[in-house]
Amino acid sequence: MENKNTLSVIKIGGNIIDDDRQLTVFLEQFRLLPGYRILVHGGGKIATDIGAKLGIEPNYVAGRRITDEQTLRLVTMVYGGLINKNIVARLQALGCNAIGLTGADAGLLPATRRPVKDIDYGYVGDVNSAAIDSVLLSQFLGMSLVPVFAPLTHDRNGSILNTNADTIAQELAKAMAEVMKTELIYCFEKKGVLANEHDDATVVKEITESDFKSMKENGVVTGGMIPKLENALAAVAHGVSRVVIGHAGDIVDIIKGNAGTCIR
Amino acid sequence: MENKNTLSVIKIGGNIIDDDRQLTVFLEQFRLLPGYRILVHGGGKIATDIGAKLGIEPNYVAGRRITDEQTLRLVTMVYGGLINKNIVARLQALGCNAIGLTGADAGLLPATRRPVKDIDYGYVGDVNSAAIDSVLLSQFLGMSLVPVFAPLTHDRNGSILNTNADTIAQELAKAMAEVMKTELIYCFEKKGVLANEHDDATVVKEITESDFKSMKENGVVTGGMIPKLENALAAVAHGVSRVVIGHAGDIVDIIKGNAGTCIR
Repeated sequence: MENKNTLSVIKIGGNIIDDDRQLTVFLEQFRLLPGYRILVHGGGKIATDIGAKLGIEPNYVAGRRITDEQTLRLVTMVYGGLINKNIVARLQALGCNAIGLTGADAGLLPATRRPVKDIDYGYVGDVNSAAIDSVLLSQFLGMSLVPVFAPLTHDRNGSILNTNADTIAQELAKAMAEVMKTELIYCFEKKGVLANEHDDATVVKEITESDFKSMKENGVVTGGMIPKLENALAAVAHGVSRVVIGHAGDIVDIIKGNAGTCIR
Repeated sequence: MENKNTLSVIKIGGNIIDDDRQLTVFLEQFRLLPGYRILVHGGGKIATDIGAKLGIEPNYVAGRRITDEQTLRLVTMVYGGLINKNIVARLQALGCNAIGLTGADAGLLPATRRPVKDIDYGYVGDVNSAAIDSVLLSQFLGMSLVPVFAPLTHDRNGSILNTNADTIAQELAKAMAEVMKTELIYCFEKKGVLANEHDDATVVKEITESDFKSMKENGVVTGGMIPKLENALAAVAHGVSRVVIGHAGDIVDIIKGNAGTCIR
């Protein structure tokens, strides 16, 4: 058990959750991974679809989705209930002792409703990093439980808050890095950061802080990849041993260090 | 801490969940209760309302609701997500370290899909009593966690199942009675079993097996109260120290033995 004291915090996004075949492949690999594991899942189209049926229109301001009261109820149901519990039930069937959690459960992820500056994001929570209960999470891991987090936090005043799944994964990894060796894996739809975005064979194996600067200047990384890499570098700066960005279907190879883009 | 090793398994029904004022009063009392606590909540009209908006019609056969695939998705969302996480967030705000669970989480409540005899109930689970993980639940209680159960189980083959909340409370109480002194409290809309159903002042203080037989013969207990009392007597026969049926607003007095109908 060489990985006994290594924790992998793994985030899967909506593209995996919406695709039953991909999710099945991922979960079957996930259960085989060595060491401690925490899974964080995102939302997916299913929330939008159910919202549409309920007459809840997505509400965007300046390109950012606003979590109004109706949307909060929607994501609490769909993320915290439907998606989370189905993943848990499927992992249980695979012999993996999953426990589905939101940040409200056991008070694990306290957050503060985002202050209104230019935009009122509504019921969106910014995690109170210092208040994450890494001791309790360690106890769960020690009891052979596999926490599965929905992207929800709470304000300690009785309200659930909506929080980005990438952020939750990053915050969990940073907090857990203080108590055990922790790595953070972001699964997405590509094999990793690509030197040529049209060629899956051009995965960049490793990116450091200075690589990132030059890649940004040269336009190799653009758009949504920039905040992802900034978050990854911030996690490494906070003690996370490595961050890997890769494809959910490669998770076994990613853990072995044979796939994805590694940020150290 | 005279009640340190006593566990109260408390079930609240839909009538409390649908009434914000009643729920608030209940939760404020609940957090003050001595000893270990497990809360089990039912569904409520909210599931029916959301189902109606989603075009999911309640499906009854011989007066029993059928859990078809759409209904299973609905209750997984509403019971496991919306209701459960809101109760958890509110208890957290009251300083009570609640953790929301379904029977799938940590594999706590394995169940078997009900066999088809006269009626196919669909995705309805009968709890596998012997497989309830009372050791893990005891560990959670020892960690000062307060489990809050949604009325959902799982089949260990990857599916969530719908299970009656009264039944879950009873099964949890019976299993926990093997490891600690356990009492079971059913909260409903009346002060207890009434000798005269139109007079709240006529609460029957205590009912034994033989009392129940004569009350049934005399027509003092009828309808839905009969299976409730049968379940209560079965729980007592399985080692639960007492079962009390009373009003959610009286929970402090019920625990003290000063309210409700006690079945021993």
